[in-house]
Amino acid sequence: MLEIGIVGGSGYGAIELIRLLKQHKEVNIKYVFSHSKSGEDIKETFPHLQDNINVPFSSLDVDKVDCDLIFFATPSNVSKHFIPKLIERGIKVIDLSGDFRLKDPALYEKYYGEKPAEQSILDKANYSLAEWSDINNDSTKIIANPGCFPTATLLSLHPLLKNNLINKESIIIDAKTGISGAGRSLSQNVHYGEANENFSAYKLGTHKHTPEIEQYLSKLSGSDIKVMFTPHLVPMTRGILATIYVDLNEQISEEALHKMYIKTYQNKPFVRIRKIGEFPKTKEVLGSNFCDIGIYVDEERNKAVIVTVIDNLVKGASGQAIQNMNILYGFNEDEGLNLLPVYP
Amino acid sequence: MLEIGIVGGSGYGAIELIRLLKQHKEVNIKYVFSHSKSGEDIKETFPHLQDNINVPFSSLDVDKVDCDLIFFATPSNVSKHFIPKLIERGIKVIDLSGDFRLKDPALYEKYYGEKPAEQSILDKANYSLAEWSDINNDSTKIIANPGCFPTATLLSLHPLLKNNLINKESIIIDAKTGISGAGRSLSQNVHYGEANENFSAYKLGTHKHTPEIEQYLSKLSGSDIKVMFTPHLVPMTRGILATIYVDLNEQISEEALHKMYIKTYQNKPFVRIRKIGEFPKTKEVLGSNFCDIGIYVDEERNKAVIVTVIDNLVKGASGQAIQNMNILYGFNEDEGLNLLPVYP
Amino acid sequence: MLEIGIVGGSGYGAIELIRLLKQHKEVNIKYVFSHSKSGEDIKETFPHLQDNINVPFSSLDVDKVDCDLIFFATPSNVSKHFIPKLIERGIKVIDLSGDFRLKDPALYEKYYGEKPAEQSILDKANYSLAEWSDINNDSTKIIANPGCFPTATLLSLHPLLKNNLINKESIIIDAKTGISGAGRSLSQNVHYGEANENFSAYKLGTHKHTPEIEQYLSKLSGSDIKVMFTPHLVPMTRGILATIYVDLNEQISEEALHKMYIKTYQNKPFVRIRKIGEFPKTKEVLGSNFCDIGIYVDEERNKAVIVTVIDNLVKGASGQAIQNMNILYGFNEDEGLNLLPVYP
Amino acid sequence: MLEIGIVGGSGYGAIELIRLLKQHKEVNIKYVFSHSKSGEDIKETFPHLQDNINVPFSSLDVDKVDCDLIFFATPSNVSKHFIPKLIERGIKVIDLSGDFRLKDPALYEKYYGEKPAEQSILDKANYSLAEWSDINNDSTKIIANPGCFPTATLLSLHPLLKNNLINKESIIIDAKTGISGAGRSLSQNVHYGEANENFSAYKLGTHKHTPEIEQYLSKLSGSDIKVMFTPHLVPMTRGILATIYVDLNEQISEEALHKMYIKTYQNKPFVRIRKIGEFPKTKEVLGSNFCDIGIYVDEERNKAVIVTVIDNLVKGASGQAIQNMNILYGFNEDEGLNLLPVYP
Repeated sequence: MLEIGIVGGSGYGAIELIRLLKQHKEVNIKYVFSHSKSGEDIKETFPHLQDNINVPFSSLDVDKVDCDLIFFATPSNVSKHFIPKLIERGIKVIDLSGDFRLKDPALYEKYYGEKPAEQSILDKANYSLAEWSDINNDSTKIIANPGCFPTATLLSLHPLLKNNLINKESIIIDAKTGISGAGRSLSQNVHYGEANENFSAYKLGTHKHTPEIEQYLSKLSGSDIKVMFTPHLVPMTRGILATIYVDLNEQISEEALHKMYIKTYQNKPFVRIRKIGEFPKTKEVLGSNFCDIGIYVDEERNKAVIVTVIDNLVKGASGQAIQNMNILYGFNEDEGLNLLPVYP
Repeated sequence: MLEIGIVGGSGYGAIELIRLLKQHKEVNIKYVFSHSKSGEDIKETFPHLQDNINVPFSSLDVDKVDCDLIFFATPSNVSKHFIPKLIERGIKVIDLSGDFRLKDPALYEKYYGEKPAEQSILDKANYSLAEWSDINNDSTKIIANPGCFPTATLLSLHPLLKNNLINKESIIIDAKTGISGAGRSLSQNVHYGEANENFSAYKLGTHKHTPEIEQYLSKLSGSDIKVMFTPHLVPMTRGILATIYVDLNEQISEEALHKMYIKTYQNKPFVRIRKIGEFPKTKEVLGSNFCDIGIYVDEERNKAVIVTVIDNLVKGASGQAIQNMNILYGFNEDEGLNLLPVYP
Repeated sequence: MLEIGIVGGSGYGAIELIRLLKQHKEVNIKYVFSHSKSGEDIKETFPHLQDNINVPFSSLDVDKVDCDLIFFATPSNVSKHFIPKLIERGIKVIDLSGDFRLKDPALYEKYYGEKPAEQSILDKANYSLAEWSDINNDSTKIIANPGCFPTATLLSLHPLLKNNLINKESIIIDAKTGISGAGRSLSQNVHYGEANENFSAYKLGTHKHTPEIEQYLSKLSGSDIKVMFTPHLVPMTRGILATIYVDLNEQISEEALHKMYIKTYQNKPFVRIRKIGEFPKTKEVLGSNFCDIGIYVDEERNKAVIVTVIDNLVKGASGQAIQNMNILYGFNEDEGLNLLPVYP
Repeated sequence: MLEIGIVGGSGYGAIELIRLLKQHKEVNIKYVFSHSKSGEDIKETFPHLQDNINVPFSSLDVDKVDCDLIFFATPSNVSKHFIPKLIERGIKVIDLSGDFRLKDPALYEKYYGEKPAEQSILDKANYSLAEWSDINNDSTKIIANPGCFPTATLLSLHPLLKNNLINKESIIIDAKTGISGAGRSLSQNVHYGEANENFSAYKLGTHKHTPEIEQYLSKLSGSDIKVMFTPHLVPMTRGILATIYVDLNEQISEEALHKMYIKTYQNKPFVRIRKIGEFPKTKEVLGSNFCDIGIYVDEERNKAVIVTVIDNLVKGASGQAIQNMNILYGFNEDEGLNLLPVYP
């Protein structure tokens, strides 16, 4: 059994890790860390768990903690303080926060408001979009788990850029997320009275997932890519839908593009390409690790629209983190993750 | 034109007063007070108003404020500090908070956690359930506007107790409120992720509306009445539905009881008794000052169920406050309040 | 492997059986029956399943079907036509519909609008509230799976009546359900525009779960019990919360009553008694087979309130059906059901 | 008093006309027509109205109806059968349906599935986006009231195209609507269980508002314009938000573009341009006739994003219809429409 710890225990990411890891045959949850709640019973904060989890919250002591792997499900600017010591001690880390996603310290500082970890540590982190990952147990010490919007976006765009099919100036990502994407902490934006029966755009041009998307796409395509990325808030708890607009480089039929997506993802158990004319809805992946993709081509104008959904807390966070763990340790890729969507 | 001020300007009660008073022909909003936001433009906090309100937030100075009437839409334990001076200066007050509702200082202290205003001031306050009010412009200086749950409950029970039809030991009030009832301030309970797709009971036996209900019913019936009151939180923004169970003293047919309700409320424009077999839904009064009541009698067992709905922010707060103002000043009772429900 | 079939394949009950049975190690889904959709791929109706279920919809032919057990997740007045033949052929049945719950044909006719199955067949059915079931593989052929409201209600009241603690005339059940309780078929009541931001009571005195509750309680207590049962519709998809009011026969402290509940359910893995002062919320069991119970005693007035939640589609339907199957065949009681709630 | 009739009385458009016209000083509702419910009391269908509307449903007889103006709030392919006779009899018409919006019969047939009215009648219809309308009481007989998506879109794009600021090939409209946009009739899409906690794209490339948008923009710009229009369904009852992406023809600063919008709409009481950096939310116009617009410019890449919200049932349907009536008859433009948004 792999012994693991979870940091950020009072947030949604940790709770979802617990739910999913409970189904995992190869893993034992040894620690759930929460600085602010150390010593408390987890069920005081999360009554839905009652006695189904048998460790209390504790405080992370990087010098003493004794396990194989630690998940960080923390806000930005936290994990960078703990991870250097942990990997020095031989403990692997999967970081669900943004601390190790950007390779360029200046970009990190611009979008996250603080300096990142030292470059030598940053360089050790693998940004692991699970379907296109190159992590391996020998050399990988830190996995930077992708953000929720980037996950939906990059799985959508990967085939197009890999095959050089689109005008790289033309990418527009109109993304919509359920409100759990904002985390469990309090703000006027997530007050039910303000969020319910309301729909809004936010952070136009300033969202920190923009450089993360651009970094991946630029590396993949070998050229500097800028995107227009507009996130929106949907009055629902879970789910992301990204509507992605691109200009095609040349005439491609809807059928041909659809076939290319099918082929690209044929061996990826969590990516499901919908049939032509069908577009996925967020609820159709709720609670699961699936990423469903629908494809539309305006053949007259050589434009394509990719419509992609994930559960932001699963494939967009904790589920993908476990998938990355499975890949890292050679477990079945879907171990702990073969749950069907909760519908309705 | 009546010159009025509103205290508690950054809360939902104040915002609803502004919306409704905007339709009122006899009133001018001279002040919107908010201590924390004094000097700020209201639209910074409430963008939905934009330039449709032309006063900024200001600070209430009880010695200088110059108007006819002030509404307090403040949390508990605020208005009691300002009102004595205001009425001394001849300014009338309608208090939407709980500060002047309870006549017994010990009860106030038990449920509100602080001492109330001085007894001499408490005694000056009229608790005014608008349909059964005895306020008048000559003598009334302070109106204690009823709480949201008490409004729905007391309008339901008034005819039964007035006519001595029920076992006074038997009253059970199972009440459900939308989440705006908790106000605009932040807490984990009103976080969208926690409140959405969730339904819960809260404060069993300890809600501060319990003594308010009991005080009114006891006075009405001339005997000491205790009720079982259980509030619940519904994943919606607005609306209260109270399901009230009583044992009837003697055999009364559903038809007879229904007629009695019709007769009791025949001249009350905001109380609408539904036909037999029809029960009101919260959305059917949303945004309006109506209180709709449905009646069920289990004739075999001599038990009755009253199902009553209001919009908690209108009839349960700001709308009833304006209705009380209309009565106080002799305006048409429905001036500013003749809005139909927003449906759907 | 147990070979099973599911009837009513285009409804929510069947979909939830598929989701849960997918986690079950001892079961193979051989058939999903849907008369109206026979021959169609299931993913045409339920895109969330995509290729994760590998049987198409088919038509049930009672003379040819070849499996061990069939679940009926059908509307009322359907299963009674198929079950007699099936059990004759040695196929066991778990019926999630109401067809075999009531032992009194007159009651069935009154509440379900048609004649029930023949008395000889009715008599073969075990009404199996899983925690208090007496089914066994030798003699049980038909399991009548309890309704959603009765499940929450009976698990709440069982300890009180079993121990003769309450006034049997006093039971009031104020129950609230999410909208999936109305099933997947269309009606104005489940139109989003009508149901959203709305809360309502319905079917006062006429809901078909009333006689089901009364039948169980009467049998348990050995006397004729009538209840006041008021269902309400909550603007959420899943979840039931029942608030149950009873008069206690004698003075019992909250602590004593709480201990009694703890003891009663100590070996029942799906019933979780909350600590004193804590009341469960529907979301805290969402997607799981748990039934969580909170207890309040008004010690002055000898009244108790029981607050109980379940997921109506799991413990209130498909989950309990699988739990019954597990008991029937001697599998682990929680096989396929050890999922934690989906939170948030 | 203007005597008016409303056709389509059992739908949401009609209900909203009633709510708003109730506030209108110059209008009397003489008829509410509903073929299917003729003779029935309106409150049987819409209990929220109770006795606040005093005409029953009746059947429209085009030869006998006697009033000044009729609103059609009907599905497509209805009004075209009644309007020719009505205007012949001198009754003016405001049509909220799509029957008279498209000037090209072939386009109508492609998108609406039937032949439109005769060309001579089509030619008589004024498509009246209220802010940019040229209707007048002397010559206008039929007003084609714009669709909900076109209203939000065209008010957003009008200033850009009028001033020739954008690349006409580049327009992408990513639009999101609450579920009332689908009307009151039943379909699986509007079932609460399917729509709640769900977000989806639909009708990519095939929505009938596409040609309506293109017709207006083409006429305005004097050239053939095609747009990419993707509608989405949001789990909320009311509201539209359109996120519109355009490539600017030349470098324009955010400040300059913002000033241009301010100036363009300075005398239009219902269009509110937000300050730079602020983007409107759908709830901030709920229940009102406002259209709020936010502007973002990516100055490096010469791209702009316009974020626009309306209440689809008010400014997107019934409110704009009344605004058109006010313009037509020379009433104050905001008569009956000066309601503030219902917030929260």
